[in-house]
Amino acid sequence: MHLIDLITRKRDGGRITVSEWREFTEGVALARYPEYQLSALLMAIFFRGLDGEETYALMDGMLRSGGRLDFSGLGRPVVDKHSTGGVGDKVSIPLAPMVAACGVAVPMMSGRGLGHTGGTLDKLESIPGFNTRLSMAEAKAQVERLGCALIGQTGEIAPADKTLYALRDATATVEAIPLIAASIMSKKLAEGLGGLVLDVKTGAGAFMPQLERALTLATTMVDIGERCGCPTVALMTCMDHPLGVACGNAVEIEESIDILRGGGPADTREVTLALGAEMLVLARVADDIGAARSMLEDTITTGRALEKLRQIIEAQGGDPRVVDDPQGVLPRAPEQLLVVASQAGIVQRVEPRVLGRGIIALGGGRTTMEDTVDPSVGFRVLVRPGAHVSRGTPLASVLARDAAGIAAGEACVREAVSIGDAEVTVPPLISHRVTGAGTEAL
Amino acid sequence: MHLIDLITRKRDGGRITVSEWREFTEGVALARYPEYQLSALLMAIFFRGLDGEETYALMDGMLRSGGRLDFSGLGRPVVDKHSTGGVGDKVSIPLAPMVAACGVAVPMMSGRGLGHTGGTLDKLESIPGFNTRLSMAEAKAQVERLGCALIGQTGEIAPADKTLYALRDATATVEAIPLIAASIMSKKLAEGLGGLVLDVKTGAGAFMPQLERALTLATTMVDIGERCGCPTVALMTCMDHPLGVACGNAVEIEESIDILRGGGPADTREVTLALGAEMLVLARVADDIGAARSMLEDTITTGRALEKLRQIIEAQGGDPRVVDDPQGVLPRAPEQLLVVASQAGIVQRVEPRVLGRGIIALGGGRTTMEDTVDPSVGFRVLVRPGAHVSRGTPLASVLARDAAGIAAGEACVREAVSIGDAEVTVPPLISHRVTGAGTEAL
Repeated sequence: MHLIDLITRKRDGGRITVSEWREFTEGVALARYPEYQLSALLMAIFFRGLDGEETYALMDGMLRSGGRLDFSGLGRPVVDKHSTGGVGDKVSIPLAPMVAACGVAVPMMSGRGLGHTGGTLDKLESIPGFNTRLSMAEAKAQVERLGCALIGQTGEIAPADKTLYALRDATATVEAIPLIAASIMSKKLAEGLGGLVLDVKTGAGAFMPQLERALTLATTMVDIGERCGCPTVALMTCMDHPLGVACGNAVEIEESIDILRGGGPADTREVTLALGAEMLVLARVADDIGAARSMLEDTITTGRALEKLRQIIEAQGGDPRVVDDPQGVLPRAPEQLLVVASQAGIVQRVEPRVLGRGIIALGGGRTTMEDTVDPSVGFRVLVRPGAHVSRGTPLASVLARDAAGIAAGEACVREAVSIGDAEVTVPPLISHRVTGAGTEAL
Repeated sequence: MHLIDLITRKRDGGRITVSEWREFTEGVALARYPEYQLSALLMAIFFRGLDGEETYALMDGMLRSGGRLDFSGLGRPVVDKHSTGGVGDKVSIPLAPMVAACGVAVPMMSGRGLGHTGGTLDKLESIPGFNTRLSMAEAKAQVERLGCALIGQTGEIAPADKTLYALRDATATVEAIPLIAASIMSKKLAEGLGGLVLDVKTGAGAFMPQLERALTLATTMVDIGERCGCPTVALMTCMDHPLGVACGNAVEIEESIDILRGGGPADTREVTLALGAEMLVLARVADDIGAARSMLEDTITTGRALEKLRQIIEAQGGDPRVVDDPQGVLPRAPEQLLVVASQAGIVQRVEPRVLGRGIIALGGGRTTMEDTVDPSVGFRVLVRPGAHVSRGTPLASVLARDAAGIAAGEACVREAVSIGDAEVTVPPLISHRVTGAGTEAL
């Protein structure tokens, strides 16, 4: 097989066969092809797309290029969740222990923040001592023992995806839906799952803001999961404004613990429950969504979910007292400022990208993978679009390292939160549910 | 300037500015960009195209990335011809001495065969001793002394084009019209020309078979020439069947010498005269095409063109006796076979690509730039589409190294020449003339 023939065929709108994708992904993992040919193929795919069979074959080849977790002898269903990412999206942190407390194994492999969005690993590492760098064997042992591990992607998982992803990032070919879908699914399906729930974000703060394209991404990923024999459900959730109140690293751990104590913002709690309920139904430990929600709420009221989080933190080297006294254990920003409305009116927009970039400006995010993150900084966003405010109503608090950070953070809040006269139509928190059977508006 | 921004913008259908193209081509010549980014940009250009200003700016940047011939003190007009290539296209070899014999300087830089087409350099090198590898200084000195040099592209010319061309070849991005146009023109305009005539081939044996796309290529190149202050004319000529009789290397030198002696096939002579007449008019040594043709015919009848070719061959180390006794001096194939019609009828097609690939199979062409070429092998094609033949009418002779070559060559002739009952509409030899003022059907 000559790669130039695949490039030419894809360029002209043709198909690449299943066996060609297999040979291709093997070759990529072995660094057999020149990068200039790979990037030409990626750009041709950007323009021509891949059909369902091609997308699946690419995903399957990338999956097979690396190792996989094997939970076949576990005696417990194994289910995971993946989010396409946003600002304030800390759902994985309360969700994983809640679902694990219901008897479902959750081998949750997460990523780091890049661009305007945060990453679960960075948030977890704000817990003193917490180690996300477990080997596959360590992660497997912990899942067997506690039902959950909160870890990063190891080098053993989908090396072909790793090569292609790095090239896509450098060649403006990230945004191709089949490439995104195959990349995400090759990593998640390496976890040896019996079910997968996807949180596909839409709106201004999502990587794919337009609902239509986000729905196509969801459908493509659900199709891959089903083809792989892994039942997959996607919920389309709102990222037109930040999720919850906390935006940053330590501050989002604090909100996650609030959720497990029965508090926290309603929207964070609702998205967590909705995704968790789908996971329990896929795991067949609940018959329907209603029963599943009750089980999840029960893990909060009984304290079992908080206890599960404590065990996970302890197992991964973190300070377990954080679940009892988050503010005492987590790093705290030395400077704080409450930013208040300078005029009365209705909150028109709370721009998640502006706040996400603000976190980076405060030192709490990354512009390259080598950046170190200050876990203490960030925002508490106290208003939502549609809220009626008076002059002096608190809009957000800024958590910063110094006075310069406070000034930058305040400017960021004033840019992100616009106040006007018009009534605002608030988009639904969860708009669609996508399964192998089709798409349902909620 | 970050190359990723140019890739993203072009991918999304945007424009790259003149100063960005300048910086880009400088960076390419200095190997400043990773090849995987260059190839992604080339593929985005393949899909999105370049407008006239962008194409010109890319060409201009590639031109400026290298050295140029400077004939400003020559006191003679400098004009060249370029052909997009075909099978049996030996026109440069008789044309250059004819035009030079009219007092016009012709610094003819040519290429080697690749794919199904032959290359002028390979043909010239079938003359024993002939050296095409002159430096720019040597070429300039010879043009000043004799009015003509027949040479290859030196490394000093358009190094940015050299890098991009090699990448295009390996990434299926050769066929983009603005890239083809900018590549050709950056090399030709480095010759310091006062005028340029383009022979743009159309039909089955052309690199761009469809007339419409070939016309777009012609218009794009003429536009570049005019923007550069180099008056440019393109003739669209027929490559639906081979040009002339001889197809190969030594055999095409022989036909070229026949032309300069007043013989040779009518189509080769006609294309040579038509292109040469445009050159003389651009050079302002003739007032109109009619006068220019008379001048050119005069160089044949007086023997001045043949004498010029003899001088050029001698200056470049070749055996000058070839012009008097081509068959005695040129390498001769040990085996020959005359292939005759096995049925009566009308010649429907003479497929140039089949014959071009046949020359490669006989050892007279290249599949990679490293292949060595046997100059003695090839075909003499004795029929044209529309010819009425009887059983036994000679179709072509095969010139080969051995019996296996003869068998392969005969099979190739039988595949290339189809005979049937239908009357055949023969496409015009020269169909259109493209200038800065527009396109004229002939």
